Amino acid sequence: MPGQVGLGEFDLIARYLAPLSASAPGAFNLSDDAAIVPVPAGEDLVVTTDAMIEGVHFLAKDGPERIARKLLRVNLSDLAAKGARPIGYQLILGLPAEPDEAWLAKFCDGLRRDQEAFDFPLYGGDTVRTPAGITLGVTAFGSMPSGSMLRRSTAQVGDDLYVTGSIGDAALGLETKLNHRLFSSAAMLFFDARLHLPTPRLAFGQRLRGLAHAAMDVSDGLVQDAGHMAKASGLRAVITADAVPLSLATRQAVQDDPDLLSVVLSGGDDYELLFSAAPDQAAAVVALSRSVGLAATRIGMLTAGQGVVVQDHTGMPLTLDHGGFQHFGGS
Amino acid sequence: MPGQVGLGEFDLIARYLAPLSASAPGAFNLSDDAAIVPVPAGEDLVVTTDAMIEGVHFLAKDGPERIARKLLRVNLSDLAAKGARPIGYQLILGLPAEPDEAWLAKFCDGLRRDQEAFDFPLYGGDTVRTPAGITLGVTAFGSMPSGSMLRRSTAQVGDDLYVTGSIGDAALGLETKLNHRLFSSAAMLFFDARLHLPTPRLAFGQRLRGLAHAAMDVSDGLVQDAGHMAKASGLRAVITADAVPLSLATRQAVQDDPDLLSVVLSGGDDYELLFSAAPDQAAAVVALSRSVGLAATRIGMLTAGQGVVVQDHTGMPLTLDHGGFQHFGGS
Repeated sequence: MPGQVGLGEFDLIARYLAPLSASAPGAFNLSDDAAIVPVPAGEDLVVTTDAMIEGVHFLAKDGPERIARKLLRVNLSDLAAKGARPIGYQLILGLPAEPDEAWLAKFCDGLRRDQEAFDFPLYGGDTVRTPAGITLGVTAFGSMPSGSMLRRSTAQVGDDLYVTGSIGDAALGLETKLNHRLFSSAAMLFFDARLHLPTPRLAFGQRLRGLAHAAMDVSDGLVQDAGHMAKASGLRAVITADAVPLSLATRQAVQDDPDLLSVVLSGGDDYELLFSAAPDQAAAVVALSRSVGLAATRIGMLTAGQGVVVQDHTGMPLTLDHGGFQHFGGS
Repeated sequence: MPGQVGLGEFDLIARYLAPLSASAPGAFNLSDDAAIVPVPAGEDLVVTTDAMIEGVHFLAKDGPERIARKLLRVNLSDLAAKGARPIGYQLILGLPAEPDEAWLAKFCDGLRRDQEAFDFPLYGGDTVRTPAGITLGVTAFGSMPSGSMLRRSTAQVGDDLYVTGSIGDAALGLETKLNHRLFSSAAMLFFDARLHLPTPRLAFGQRLRGLAHAAMDVSDGLVQDAGHMAKASGLRAVITADAVPLSLATRQAVQDDPDLLSVVLSGGDDYELLFSAAPDQAAAVVALSRSVGLAATRIGMLTAGQGVVVQDHTGMPLTLDHGGFQHFGGS
């Protein structure tokens, strides 16, 4: 783990980062040039990378522990969407010339908490100095039985389209944060938690292997991500807006201001699983949902064609406009 | 490969990055959330990460193609030092809000050139917007037969200490660049090339498996890195300064100004291999050197004790002072 953050680099690694690798023998206590990441025999190695930049993806005032945990969780969400079991990760930690040690201690405590929660140790990385601001990057490793990775591009005509949990809570949290939108105190706390502390749907994702035809996580926004799945699969996604699962708080917010529906459907940062499955798997999806204790709601289907159609419960297409609708062209 | 660089993100990935993954089926044309990185049966997966930040590790004027190639080569050098065969890499590409497409095209052309040279395709990553400046990060994957990774910490008492190639050329390149130090035109061109375009010693490193006791690459400076190997192995490194291999240009520079010796021995960015081997392997090292066509020079040995001693050819300890000598405490 070579690099440079000024004179304290080796101390920084030894004091704050090496303990995070304690449960990973192949990390060699972060004292070598490289790490050995164990991939179980008969399994495929799956890798994913997400970076977070201060001033773009987070603000310093967001709190170091929450920043750390979101950094791990957005990567874990990608592993969940592929049906993978987490193995561990590499970290890029870019800090200004005079790093704030209190910030760093809290950041590493956040990493430690979620490493323990998800059995996801640090294997190595690089510490670097930045001219200004904090730069974070994670490459996450996971594995699943060979040939069983869930793909975006393998949805089939006639598949039902499902999403886990609820959609739009994080988008309303961002509305509160950026546009000072007001909701009830309880709702704002809930939206804020959903924005900053997504829950990677690992157990659900692993059990989708062999059941779902296609899967991905919802990070860019439900409509846009359904468009990505449809495009990758050469199909059209049809979503019934009324069927999209909303939390009580989000349902109330949309009732009070129907214009928020487009924010909810296209806002992003949900980190729920979007997946397609054959209609004859409907009972299996219900059973999985009950077994894991996580809602999975049928929100539409995949048909021949291209793009995304969002319709009301009568089948009338809705025209929504919002920044997230980059690939929206079905109505 | 989700992320955000503004409206052109998907175009950017499709036009510039996806072609770099063409030879890697597991990259799924960068259209999924994650990639499958193939690890040969019976081999260990080795991973390493290096980041490069504009204004710290490179300047925009350094040239996009050279920046790209150095980014890959410093990571490949870590794989070389572990005896690994390269597999491929994940890329974090952080660009300001209005990316310079000409810069990007040249940068990706640099990646392409070295990907082809080293059979090292892109598997995935993340594209992000930065408030200012370019942020680059690579996590590199390689493999070697299980249990055969070369370590830093496994040098043994009595081992000979070797280094490949020549030391100090890149440090004199940095002297020219940062301190406007003048050498002959030919020397300055050579130093500049050694600074910006290191050669990962992959073939040599792979053949060190089973021969060397310990190995690492020289990135922080020869004396400091010998100190890292000594510390990790619980030993002392003794280096004979006169034995350190210098290029003709560097030898001339040190003759003209003996003060440059400390820059040469501690300057860093050499990306040569530093390794230890039992004395009875001396003939095997010579044979390997001839076979690969790369010099390997015995520069000292490992003894009981700690720290690094740099001595002249009579065994008198030399006292050197330079920023790179953070762990220097043997004389």
